[in-house]
Amino acid sequence: MADEFVLRLRVQCAETDLADVLHFANYFRFMEEVEHAFWRATGEGVITEQDGCRISWPRVSTRCEYFAPVHFEDELDLVLRVAEVGDRSVTFEIEFRREGRRVASGQIKAVCCSTSDGAFGPVPMPKSLRRKLEASVGAHGGALQR
Amino acid sequence: MADEFVLRLRVQCAETDLADVLHFANYFRFMEEVEHAFWRATGEGVITEQDGCRISWPRVSTRCEYFAPVHFEDELDLVLRVAEVGDRSVTFEIEFRREGRRVASGQIKAVCCSTSDGAFGPVPMPKSLRRKLEASVGAHGGALQR
Amino acid sequence: MADEFVLRLRVQCAETDLADVLHFANYFRFMEEVEHAFWRATGEGVITEQDGCRISWPRVSTRCEYFAPVHFEDELDLVLRVAEVGDRSVTFEIEFRREGRRVASGQIKAVCCSTSDGAFGPVPMPKSLRRKLEASVGAHGGALQR
Amino acid sequence: MADEFVLRLRVQCAETDLADVLHFANYFRFMEEVEHAFWRATGEGVITEQDGCRISWPRVSTRCEYFAPVHFEDELDLVLRVAEVGDRSVTFEIEFRREGRRVASGQIKAVCCSTSDGAFGPVPMPKSLRRKLEASVGAHGGALQR
Repeated sequence: MADEFVLRLRVQCAETDLADVLHFANYFRFMEEVEHAFWRATGEGVITEQDGCRISWPRVSTRCEYFAPVHFEDELDLVLRVAEVGDRSVTFEIEFRREGRRVASGQIKAVCCSTSDGAFGPVPMPKSLRRKLEASVGAHGGALQR
Repeated sequence: MADEFVLRLRVQCAETDLADVLHFANYFRFMEEVEHAFWRATGEGVITEQDGCRISWPRVSTRCEYFAPVHFEDELDLVLRVAEVGDRSVTFEIEFRREGRRVASGQIKAVCCSTSDGAFGPVPMPKSLRRKLEASVGAHGGALQR
Repeated sequence: MADEFVLRLRVQCAETDLADVLHFANYFRFMEEVEHAFWRATGEGVITEQDGCRISWPRVSTRCEYFAPVHFEDELDLVLRVAEVGDRSVTFEIEFRREGRRVASGQIKAVCCSTSDGAFGPVPMPKSLRRKLEASVGAHGGALQR
Repeated sequence: MADEFVLRLRVQCAETDLADVLHFANYFRFMEEVEHAFWRATGEGVITEQDGCRISWPRVSTRCEYFAPVHFEDELDLVLRVAEVGDRSVTFEIEFRREGRRVASGQIKAVCCSTSDGAFGPVPMPKSLRRKLEASVGAHGGALQR
């Protein structure tokens, strides 16, 4: 599907816990990994210079629902979709699939910030980035390996 | 407050990222840490034998909202509250406070499962655990160190 | 080179710390990742059934030397070599290269254990595994992506 | 003992792996945690301003030996000792004890660096820090909780 971006990851030992499952906090690391792979595929990167400002994307909210346990060495397809583009924010939805079956589903809402002197401040999203978000998913879709 | 359970944690270097903030996925580790401290304080532990069954609490959904960046060596008070007790599930709300000010807020919904042969299955919550959840917060409240 | 096994990894945000470098503990996760990729390439996997026993490889010692800082989104080639095969143990050496230049170097010594009832115990290495260790590196060498 | 600095930690769920043990890479996080607690106890902190320079301590080598498996919710005493103070480096030895018995033992060698413009460079250790390292262990010894 043209409006999806897919990254395949394998669950590593250090990402599991004593219950022999992928620890629930690590789903958020995986979500970030596909998000950053998406940004690289747009040609920008998640941290980028725009008009002399360093732009990054702190999170304002995240969530995840878990449908089935995931185990050591399982291969997961992380399917990212740009769900909403606001003036200063973007919402990504990420589906976790194993052998085509959905095992979890999550969301990251991030706000466009300019960093200077180590402090974050929200700013209107540069037009170039907005265009990437709105248009690039189809152009860059397809399965990658991390 | 009698209906809260508080754990104080300090942000470690490995929990930060290059933006010099607590990485957003690690808030979920912190939430679990206060949840497990709460279970220990009830006298049960998050993994417990009940009527010959091994009970544990896989997550069905989690979420977090972030209000202000948190930095290396910041001390955080994680304030846990039992928000809802269902037949087979419990919902915890956790507030992150730094010097009394809320910096993040999250939620964990977990389902009561019996484990046998490595497989999870949801079961009605044992009465003894339900009583702990409904009654013990007040009795065990107070600030702990991890 | 025929006696090396190589895995390419990219440094993720959650793996960095506030100093804007790959956190030193995460080098050990990377070493394990190439070790497990090596075991998969042998056809066995790091956890395997042999003669009715579940074999795994707890670590007895690990070490790492760091030669240059590594940053977010750097691509690293992890070059694994079987350094020593004992009666019950194996020592892997792992070199970290960025654009062909060595940036770190580490070692994992693991002991062959049989697991039963959740307890580990060292056992003589099954011949089939020893043969894999001694012979398979050349056969399976080459650059993989994780 | 007057020449030791002790921090008590409890093993968290996310720190275990599917083998139901503390994952071997997390011992390095624990070592850093006692190291940083030690620096705080000296009154300096691991990142400190000295004569207008920002001083920090990148690692040049680390190692760990593992003597017995460690499990979820185990309480560990991390016993730090300053093993060697060089012109530009310090070596810490850390012993992991559970109920008084040694279960692991590790080492961190770190080099005194001045940071400017995001780049590290080794510098001679400021006298004030050297004095802290050589003298403060006895003064600040005793068991802490993290």
